[in-house]
Amino acid sequence: MIALFTDYGLADPYVGQLHAVLARDAPGVPVIDLFHGVPRFDFRAGAYLLPAYTHGFPVETVFLCVVDPGVGGARRPVILRADDRWYVGPDNGLFHVLERRAARHECHLIRWRPPQLSASFHGRDLFAPVAAQLARAQMPDAEPAALSRPAGELWPDDLAEILYVDHYGNAISGLRAGAVRPAQRLRVGGEVVKYARAFSEAAVGMPFWYENANGLVEIAVNRGSAALALGLKLGDSITLV
Amino acid sequence: MIALFTDYGLADPYVGQLHAVLARDAPGVPVIDLFHGVPRFDFRAGAYLLPAYTHGFPVETVFLCVVDPGVGGARRPVILRADDRWYVGPDNGLFHVLERRAARHECHLIRWRPPQLSASFHGRDLFAPVAAQLARAQMPDAEPAALSRPAGELWPDDLAEILYVDHYGNAISGLRAGAVRPAQRLRVGGEVVKYARAFSEAAVGMPFWYENANGLVEIAVNRGSAALALGLKLGDSITLV
Amino acid sequence: MIALFTDYGLADPYVGQLHAVLARDAPGVPVIDLFHGVPRFDFRAGAYLLPAYTHGFPVETVFLCVVDPGVGGARRPVILRADDRWYVGPDNGLFHVLERRAARHECHLIRWRPPQLSASFHGRDLFAPVAAQLARAQMPDAEPAALSRPAGELWPDDLAEILYVDHYGNAISGLRAGAVRPAQRLRVGGEVVKYARAFSEAAVGMPFWYENANGLVEIAVNRGSAALALGLKLGDSITLV
Repeated sequence: MIALFTDYGLADPYVGQLHAVLARDAPGVPVIDLFHGVPRFDFRAGAYLLPAYTHGFPVETVFLCVVDPGVGGARRPVILRADDRWYVGPDNGLFHVLERRAARHECHLIRWRPPQLSASFHGRDLFAPVAAQLARAQMPDAEPAALSRPAGELWPDDLAEILYVDHYGNAISGLRAGAVRPAQRLRVGGEVVKYARAFSEAAVGMPFWYENANGLVEIAVNRGSAALALGLKLGDSITLV
Repeated sequence: MIALFTDYGLADPYVGQLHAVLARDAPGVPVIDLFHGVPRFDFRAGAYLLPAYTHGFPVETVFLCVVDPGVGGARRPVILRADDRWYVGPDNGLFHVLERRAARHECHLIRWRPPQLSASFHGRDLFAPVAAQLARAQMPDAEPAALSRPAGELWPDDLAEILYVDHYGNAISGLRAGAVRPAQRLRVGGEVVKYARAFSEAAVGMPFWYENANGLVEIAVNRGSAALALGLKLGDSITLV
Repeated sequence: MIALFTDYGLADPYVGQLHAVLARDAPGVPVIDLFHGVPRFDFRAGAYLLPAYTHGFPVETVFLCVVDPGVGGARRPVILRADDRWYVGPDNGLFHVLERRAARHECHLIRWRPPQLSASFHGRDLFAPVAAQLARAQMPDAEPAALSRPAGELWPDDLAEILYVDHYGNAISGLRAGAVRPAQRLRVGGEVVKYARAFSEAAVGMPFWYENANGLVEIAVNRGSAALALGLKLGDSITLV
């Protein structure tokens, strides 16, 4: 199985072009559009969401991961093998959190190159063919290497920020729920919210936080939009009070 | 075949996570993203759209239907068998219209539970595995039961309201076209619109109503947006004049 | 393989209903959602994007192409065979550019009709079943015919206009990059932009043009939105300076 994780969105032709390559190079292999909604260019947000959304997939799943603002430049294409799953994508920090949390991991620098490589769409031209090779149990031409350490910002174990707002208006953080006590109150968007176990246990219209189905702290409103109610936006910080 | 009908939208990772479960539990079974655009939380709108959009599918199709604001609470998970097709989802009214119109139907309360059940994502954890079992011709652990009668509002045979606005700006109602005479004029958004058989028979820019390809009364504008032209929004009522 | 190219968007049930027909009529054939974001009703924009996005697909691919504001009227349903690929859709100009550029092409008027044909959804009722027949290597009932010449506007070899803005804010034109020298400066949205080979070679925030991965001139901003930076909208013209 190949699962896709990108910032490509679904409106444009890019995801379809990935599928065309995968159908050509790995015919018969199931391909799943896991998530194309990583905020544009934000490989750091992607790095903290990736372990949450890929958790529970079968071993040997190949994740094709592209959040790649440096495409066409010096950043290196890599394959990460972590806890018996494959991850293919740019070495820009996107795999950093996953690697830190993995019990077993090894990284390879991709040497393989396609006959034609565009300057802007390595997802289609390079990463997808490599993912297809891995899904067919073939190791592409590659050499052992270490993942780069992402520069320029702190990369904590958990990221207490709003990383994504879903279409209901739920605000998803990079903070694993296991790192917070259920009784804990959180401050976000200038207000303090309490814990609830489930939407149906929160009063309609009242913001709360809960452990979402992917293990992350999420700010929500029963039958409403937390983003609207609290004026939340990407990058807003969450603090324990 | 499994067909998906939800209010999950496509921007978020939820539909991808459904597909991952179905690929795991029902490998090789075709899965179709029929409609993920039911207005958020609105199982009543979903109830009137569901028969229109599922019409014409082959017998034994399994419809995985999730519009489930009460997830994690007391509402019951059910399987409806209606006119030789399967419908899996919450017993909150979503299947009420379908059942009323079915020539043959029976309902089962789902007793099966997964090893791990999140409080917020029964689509992935409970309904998808049950749909996969049905698609493999296995009956999950379940007991005969009656669907609950939805409370709190009238549920007429046809719902003369705008239930959905598509990306062209066409406004789709819960009123079956068979319930209205073609010569009939309709009042909607403060204006009166006439019938046309097809877009190409209406003057460009002029609002009209027609029987859409799913049998429902739809307000449209030839090469334009009815929602914009008439200021229509979800819940607006339609009256015969 | 069947690839879909429409102005249906992904929010509505229309693409799902296409897939249901294709699963019924061409079971086991891979179906790819190539692009559903052609600007609404704009078969002229679609005509210039179609050759760019379908380039590189295997021979015998069947492209199901629907941008069809005249549905239900007099426009004719056609099959174009061009350079060993199949294109099914309305004869309204959508295939005009493709045909002009093809080394080999022939066109057939579709005589086949389904038992039930709606007035508004020939994509589902007529074009999809025909595409399924072609994908199963069956020629539907059809007769040789010439494509209509689109009327009312000039259709140049390349269209120096903004035809699509992607979700990053990149503005895609109908101008093939091969028709412009790399040193060329372009005027668009009242400003002059220079060429860059890749995003990573342009200063962050600075608009530039480049040859995109589908061979077209695209206006972009490194880690930003060209549409926002330059105030671009669909139909804006591009001139050489």
